[in-house]
Amino acid sequence: MDYAIEVVFCRLKIKPKKPNYMKYRIEKDTMGAVEVPADKYWGAQTQRSINNFKIGGERNRMPIEIIHAFAILKKSAALANAELGVLAQDKADIIGKVCDEIQTGQHDDQFPLVIWQTGSGTQSNMNANEVIAYRSHVLLGGTLEDEKKKIHPNDDVNKSQSSNDTFPTAMHIAAYKMVMETTLPGIIKLRDTLKSKSEAFMDVVKIGRTHFMDATPLTLGQEFSGYVAQLDHGIRALKNTLSHLSELALGGTAVGTGLNTPAGYSELVAKKIAELSGQPLVTAPNKFEALAAHDGIVETHGALKQIAVSLMKIANDIRMLSSGPRSGIGEILIPENEPGSSIMPGKVNPTQVEAITMVAAQVMGNDVAISIGGSNGHFELNVFKPMMIANFLQSARLIGDAAVSFTDNCAVGIEPNRPFIKRHLENSLMLVTALNPHIGYENAAAIAKKAHKEGTSLREAALDLGLLTSEQFDEWVKPEDMIGSLK
Amino acid sequence: MDYAIEVVFCRLKIKPKKPNYMKYRIEKDTMGAVEVPADKYWGAQTQRSINNFKIGGERNRMPIEIIHAFAILKKSAALANAELGVLAQDKADIIGKVCDEIQTGQHDDQFPLVIWQTGSGTQSNMNANEVIAYRSHVLLGGTLEDEKKKIHPNDDVNKSQSSNDTFPTAMHIAAYKMVMETTLPGIIKLRDTLKSKSEAFMDVVKIGRTHFMDATPLTLGQEFSGYVAQLDHGIRALKNTLSHLSELALGGTAVGTGLNTPAGYSELVAKKIAELSGQPLVTAPNKFEALAAHDGIVETHGALKQIAVSLMKIANDIRMLSSGPRSGIGEILIPENEPGSSIMPGKVNPTQVEAITMVAAQVMGNDVAISIGGSNGHFELNVFKPMMIANFLQSARLIGDAAVSFTDNCAVGIEPNRPFIKRHLENSLMLVTALNPHIGYENAAAIAKKAHKEGTSLREAALDLGLLTSEQFDEWVKPEDMIGSLK
Amino acid sequence: MDYAIEVVFCRLKIKPKKPNYMKYRIEKDTMGAVEVPADKYWGAQTQRSINNFKIGGERNRMPIEIIHAFAILKKSAALANAELGVLAQDKADIIGKVCDEIQTGQHDDQFPLVIWQTGSGTQSNMNANEVIAYRSHVLLGGTLEDEKKKIHPNDDVNKSQSSNDTFPTAMHIAAYKMVMETTLPGIIKLRDTLKSKSEAFMDVVKIGRTHFMDATPLTLGQEFSGYVAQLDHGIRALKNTLSHLSELALGGTAVGTGLNTPAGYSELVAKKIAELSGQPLVTAPNKFEALAAHDGIVETHGALKQIAVSLMKIANDIRMLSSGPRSGIGEILIPENEPGSSIMPGKVNPTQVEAITMVAAQVMGNDVAISIGGSNGHFELNVFKPMMIANFLQSARLIGDAAVSFTDNCAVGIEPNRPFIKRHLENSLMLVTALNPHIGYENAAAIAKKAHKEGTSLREAALDLGLLTSEQFDEWVKPEDMIGSLK
Amino acid sequence: MDYAIEVVFCRLKIKPKKPNYMKYRIEKDTMGAVEVPADKYWGAQTQRSINNFKIGGERNRMPIEIIHAFAILKKSAALANAELGVLAQDKADIIGKVCDEIQTGQHDDQFPLVIWQTGSGTQSNMNANEVIAYRSHVLLGGTLEDEKKKIHPNDDVNKSQSSNDTFPTAMHIAAYKMVMETTLPGIIKLRDTLKSKSEAFMDVVKIGRTHFMDATPLTLGQEFSGYVAQLDHGIRALKNTLSHLSELALGGTAVGTGLNTPAGYSELVAKKIAELSGQPLVTAPNKFEALAAHDGIVETHGALKQIAVSLMKIANDIRMLSSGPRSGIGEILIPENEPGSSIMPGKVNPTQVEAITMVAAQVMGNDVAISIGGSNGHFELNVFKPMMIANFLQSARLIGDAAVSFTDNCAVGIEPNRPFIKRHLENSLMLVTALNPHIGYENAAAIAKKAHKEGTSLREAALDLGLLTSEQFDEWVKPEDMIGSLK
Repeated sequence: MDYAIEVVFCRLKIKPKKPNYMKYRIEKDTMGAVEVPADKYWGAQTQRSINNFKIGGERNRMPIEIIHAFAILKKSAALANAELGVLAQDKADIIGKVCDEIQTGQHDDQFPLVIWQTGSGTQSNMNANEVIAYRSHVLLGGTLEDEKKKIHPNDDVNKSQSSNDTFPTAMHIAAYKMVMETTLPGIIKLRDTLKSKSEAFMDVVKIGRTHFMDATPLTLGQEFSGYVAQLDHGIRALKNTLSHLSELALGGTAVGTGLNTPAGYSELVAKKIAELSGQPLVTAPNKFEALAAHDGIVETHGALKQIAVSLMKIANDIRMLSSGPRSGIGEILIPENEPGSSIMPGKVNPTQVEAITMVAAQVMGNDVAISIGGSNGHFELNVFKPMMIANFLQSARLIGDAAVSFTDNCAVGIEPNRPFIKRHLENSLMLVTALNPHIGYENAAAIAKKAHKEGTSLREAALDLGLLTSEQFDEWVKPEDMIGSLK
Repeated sequence: MDYAIEVVFCRLKIKPKKPNYMKYRIEKDTMGAVEVPADKYWGAQTQRSINNFKIGGERNRMPIEIIHAFAILKKSAALANAELGVLAQDKADIIGKVCDEIQTGQHDDQFPLVIWQTGSGTQSNMNANEVIAYRSHVLLGGTLEDEKKKIHPNDDVNKSQSSNDTFPTAMHIAAYKMVMETTLPGIIKLRDTLKSKSEAFMDVVKIGRTHFMDATPLTLGQEFSGYVAQLDHGIRALKNTLSHLSELALGGTAVGTGLNTPAGYSELVAKKIAELSGQPLVTAPNKFEALAAHDGIVETHGALKQIAVSLMKIANDIRMLSSGPRSGIGEILIPENEPGSSIMPGKVNPTQVEAITMVAAQVMGNDVAISIGGSNGHFELNVFKPMMIANFLQSARLIGDAAVSFTDNCAVGIEPNRPFIKRHLENSLMLVTALNPHIGYENAAAIAKKAHKEGTSLREAALDLGLLTSEQFDEWVKPEDMIGSLK
Repeated sequence: MDYAIEVVFCRLKIKPKKPNYMKYRIEKDTMGAVEVPADKYWGAQTQRSINNFKIGGERNRMPIEIIHAFAILKKSAALANAELGVLAQDKADIIGKVCDEIQTGQHDDQFPLVIWQTGSGTQSNMNANEVIAYRSHVLLGGTLEDEKKKIHPNDDVNKSQSSNDTFPTAMHIAAYKMVMETTLPGIIKLRDTLKSKSEAFMDVVKIGRTHFMDATPLTLGQEFSGYVAQLDHGIRALKNTLSHLSELALGGTAVGTGLNTPAGYSELVAKKIAELSGQPLVTAPNKFEALAAHDGIVETHGALKQIAVSLMKIANDIRMLSSGPRSGIGEILIPENEPGSSIMPGKVNPTQVEAITMVAAQVMGNDVAISIGGSNGHFELNVFKPMMIANFLQSARLIGDAAVSFTDNCAVGIEPNRPFIKRHLENSLMLVTALNPHIGYENAAAIAKKAHKEGTSLREAALDLGLLTSEQFDEWVKPEDMIGSLK
Repeated sequence: MDYAIEVVFCRLKIKPKKPNYMKYRIEKDTMGAVEVPADKYWGAQTQRSINNFKIGGERNRMPIEIIHAFAILKKSAALANAELGVLAQDKADIIGKVCDEIQTGQHDDQFPLVIWQTGSGTQSNMNANEVIAYRSHVLLGGTLEDEKKKIHPNDDVNKSQSSNDTFPTAMHIAAYKMVMETTLPGIIKLRDTLKSKSEAFMDVVKIGRTHFMDATPLTLGQEFSGYVAQLDHGIRALKNTLSHLSELALGGTAVGTGLNTPAGYSELVAKKIAELSGQPLVTAPNKFEALAAHDGIVETHGALKQIAVSLMKIANDIRMLSSGPRSGIGEILIPENEPGSSIMPGKVNPTQVEAITMVAAQVMGNDVAISIGGSNGHFELNVFKPMMIANFLQSARLIGDAAVSFTDNCAVGIEPNRPFIKRHLENSLMLVTALNPHIGYENAAAIAKKAHKEGTSLREAALDLGLLTSEQFDEWVKPEDMIGSLK
């Protein structure tokens, strides 16, 4: 059996004020003791964030892609630190091992913090540091109750780093991966499908519409070629932004000067990250910009927004072209994925169109949130980081996912509805233009006016007026001669 | 003859670097001497703004409504100052006289400053002070070349005021007037026209559409009643915001404390402004908010944005319902205001729809600019004032103007296109629902499926299947029984 | 022990393509058979949505508040249907019982659909219908494998309803509850705390700032009173929108005409919903608007956006006023919630400010997404419903949660930093204004200029110039006399 | 004398209902006769637009850059038509001559139409056609009263064209020129000035700030290098979009097929336009996209929005760094361009900052309007064209102008305020980090804590604790060793 379910999950609600449901241990930091769930790897600082930022609940947790990006980052930093002689090799090894566990999703439940925390993402950085350190400690034979852990969250895991350069680095790693692994493949898939449709429909002559009104003809393939051109431009625009997005802040530490990093660290750690992530990431030439601004996120999301604008246009056209089945435009047929009303056969709702246009609206909204966040950096640090990356990752994933869903469940099955296309074309008063060279403009206009007034076809009006024969009409009025050259 | 042209104008380009085109006089302020065009009433500070803010050119000048609002404000302040004994009555009189000239548009060319100046609008406040003072001086027999003017821009015209409380006061005066005099009348006119259309069309049964697909019937009047309900809600929402917008900052002076104002001034000057403007404006209970935030502008523009959202929905529907003339939905006819193509009779482009939907998009964009400006106040002053009010006034005027234009040139002439409505209704497979009680669901579904598959009407399919007679079909399939109660 | 953890959860990943992890049963609809997880209550149409809309994953599921609102709606409809004689009482009883289970969170895992589905929310309506029907069937002694269920999703649970009127009804129920239960209490709590701070600080005289530059003095309490005024206006604006939001679409069915509903149904079901939800909800006077437009959502979110604008201003001020500890403005102290750097005592990052300003930016972005969705209704139905309500609920919750978090962890602990306030006030050159009446403007200006040039205090400059004595300075330069009347 | 005034103008108000103020002639089109001001070159269709679109008034006229772009376009088309043998050379010559007049601004008052007209810009295209034709007729010896004109607006001036391809072509010409001639030079000027400041300030060590709180030091030059990096990225991003923007729709005519154009026309006319405009413009590979979508405008404006985001960050920093003069951050000095209060020497308001941040907010709002417009194309035509280009041109010009104004009147004069920088640096508790290697972490922390608690300097606290000598403090605590390598 080959069936698959994508995601199912259960939520265990730990009831407040009933401590017997849960056992705790005590963790300390410089502000004192904190109770932490006994079986969790995180420490005092993560717990303080849980306690102090009860905003939005579970649906607003830090995106898991950021957590996985932190795993790549922390392993890369440990390796670079070891190579540069500032961290013992065995410490780097165990840190790397735990990072591998995290990156493969084995500890997703150890990262409970929400987006709406400190705007530098410090608490998620500390969450990563604590989980890596304490999980390492356990792997090395310790227990979570040990007051002293064998690996230290700050001194070891966070070595040569600051929240201020790690979080933006994790942002770029996660963003770059999402664009490369989800957004671009999805959009390219849709583009290729529309391209093949454009080619398949290249000789299907149909009425054009401008101002939502009947106009001169074109082919359905030409119409679809416009969609392909939009996505080609969008893909190019998105790729153009990647060089900015590839720049990593790591090595800037607290304010961009690189205080407390060994020589050669920035370049080396970027090389490690590039290897581990499989993406062509590089160290940012200017670390001050990389901490204090997130124009790279703004820039790439601008391209995502452009694609959203294109998708809205394309999907709206498909929605309108498939409208009917009787009383709409009805020139294309789209796949029927869900039961229409049992009483109303042929009512195929354009549900995939609706999903992707909702995505487009969301991305346009996210763009504003990201722009506002990006514009509000102060001095050496922008503190709208978690909000910006959460919006970015949502947009990038939604576009990719929706493009695939739209392709597989709609675009791939689009077919011309030839009877409607033919009827609209034949009815069109616009075709009268073709008679000008044969019977003169005035006579042609007379035919069109009569047809419009009486609600008849051009042919009927022309024959009624005795201006030409039925055979002449067939010979002269050929929409297929009005559509230019087909590529 | 009763014809009218609304606005015509000429632009005189003063060529740069050719001083012989223009004569100058010297005005001084605390920074020294400035050359001012000899025939202009403005002084040194206005001229410095011209010189220092060459941004956007003529199209980006401070809205004239703000200048006229300043005239109301300055006259009101002079009267209140005189009444409270801090300004000589004859000074108040001449100031008031010049303000009357300004408010009636006689000195519009004396206000050359652009929106993109200091964010407090100080320079436009000084522009008003200077023009009022120097024009007063001339009226009192002086000449512009006199070094000492009889009326002082700061000591007399600006008495008991600061830029920080005058500019936001002018914002609220201008905004309130625009809403009351242009926006609301325009929207109410459109609402009333749609209401009368809704009543006139209340028995025109037509096919409904959901998901852009054919659905159960309703009447055209019911459809239009939804538009009326939208505008009714929008009008109410807009009116709800007016109490906030009616609050005037004047009397707060520099930081909201009212330093340097005589006792009773705030209330008195607000009363004067209310009288002169004809609007129920009041002194703001909290002057700190009135200087440092512009949530009143944000609030009212939020309602304008809601109306824009409604207009986009309504106008899109009208665009789509009137599409055709042959190959669209075509259920309503809209007036033909411009020649269609001479070769394509009946092509009536929905140009008024296009204008009003562009306006809607503009207002939605302006809302973002205003929100960003409003969120960026610092301490005791918001310095995005000119940008905010320029966007506000544009939105408020465009909605009002476009509603009137749309009403007069489109909505008032909308008529049902009964042949199309009838054809769509008769073609609809949805009507089969009406047969369920008579021949059973299974038989009804069989009719619908056959009709859809073969592209025939329900009637044809029903007769073909021998399930009922033509008379029975007529008796049982009555769309007018499927539309609920009509109000 | 009294400690509490709010939410902890685990996620079970059902691995794709490994059917042995999961058992299935077969459910059928008019399109044929579908495999459904054997232990789930949902049916074929829910499963088709899972299969066809793999967009965004778990974080993008339909908000649980919508599911709980559906429980209220479905129970209300069942009760109304029974009362009006179109549904057997025992069926209504069991439906009501299951709805109670759902509303109390017992079946949250039965609602796996994402936001990005059909834009009418039909699939979530069917998800609710199926789960209620099949869970009822099990409670009545049946098993999920039974082909025929005792309660029918459409005929019983969805009786007198359509997706087109249920989903917008659930939107308004969920939105209204969130505003009343989370947003308003949170904002009012913050407002009350700032009000008490304003009163407590009413006599703390400090330097004012306009254009980010030193200006005349005011008190810290006056400054905070501006924040209170902003929130007072925001609360009023939000409440103003509630009458629109209280309107329920239910009873409109497919296109707003109320086809297939018994007489009196709309009013009765609205009454039931009002009782069950505890909110003053009413039936919409115009059902066509209620299906085709969501201006009520647009309107209320506009008020949320206004509050976001206010919060950004207020929080930014607090961020800047607390900056330092040595080299910033430093006029207030905020609570230290997390360890500052162990090496840098006194570095208290304004983390709660950062969370709430990120929330503000998010809400401003969500407003654009909602406006775009709201403007894109077509004919009888707006199909951006799930996107709109997801953004709305996020905004409404985030504002409420963040206001509480900000209040409890920051605002409540704000205290004036009197040494800084005093130093800034004494340093200020602005206070020289107070000398004008005693030594004349020219002498006062000379003092200010000397102090500025030499970087000394006004007192020093005044004494140096021999213009007054130290005692006179103390007597005449009293910032507390420059702040107007305190309320 | 070398003084210059940029723009002065007068407006002549033609009073309504007083026809004796103005003489009219009669022009006809297919809908009948229209009264046109006797001295105007425009014809019936322009006049109908004036009469039917009274929206927004004078400030909302079609941007003059679009008119001038039409002049380039119409001349290019005439030349290409002549070269391809479809227009007589003498007609092309006179058309070209009039276009030259228009492009040099001689007929700006002949283009009275507003943005809020038909969404295809048809009426502005006809305005251009009519003015060119009738002015040509006059140049050829005719009079405006002649019923038959020697040059025909449609048959001659509009030959081989349609509104649908001319307006988007004019959009791209005007947009490209504005970006190349105003936006890029302005931003590059600002970037270069900030670069030279960065270099000049590279050794000015100062305190860093993260979370608006004191942090480890960096140099003022490093801080400014971040701004330069932002603008470098913005310039690159903007240039990346130009290939899309360089694509011209001309040759697509009504729906993109190129109906009624001679062979080779598209390429030839694009070549002419490139020559006349001096910009590397090319014919669009896909004309269907070029008419139906305006993603090129969306794309380039996305880059403008990114630059706006950067400018907001940079300008805010400068506003905050220059705050004071006594009670702010005060680390830089900005030029004094306008008189500060005579009573408050040293109050230099950051007015140029305020202008450019208002511009940034405007551009962010315009981006939303443009995105909404861009997403709403239908079938073969987007009808939000005039709104989109008006917003685009405003943004592009405002950014360029504001960058120049900001550079000339602010950035170029920025200087470090060394006493403030020194004091903040010396006060900072952060410098204690430098003592760790010498006296150990615990002792260093003890110094910092004592200093913070007692409000003293690190030096005082250290000496008080007897942990080191004053000489040792000077030797060990060197901020200039904490700033990394300077480039």
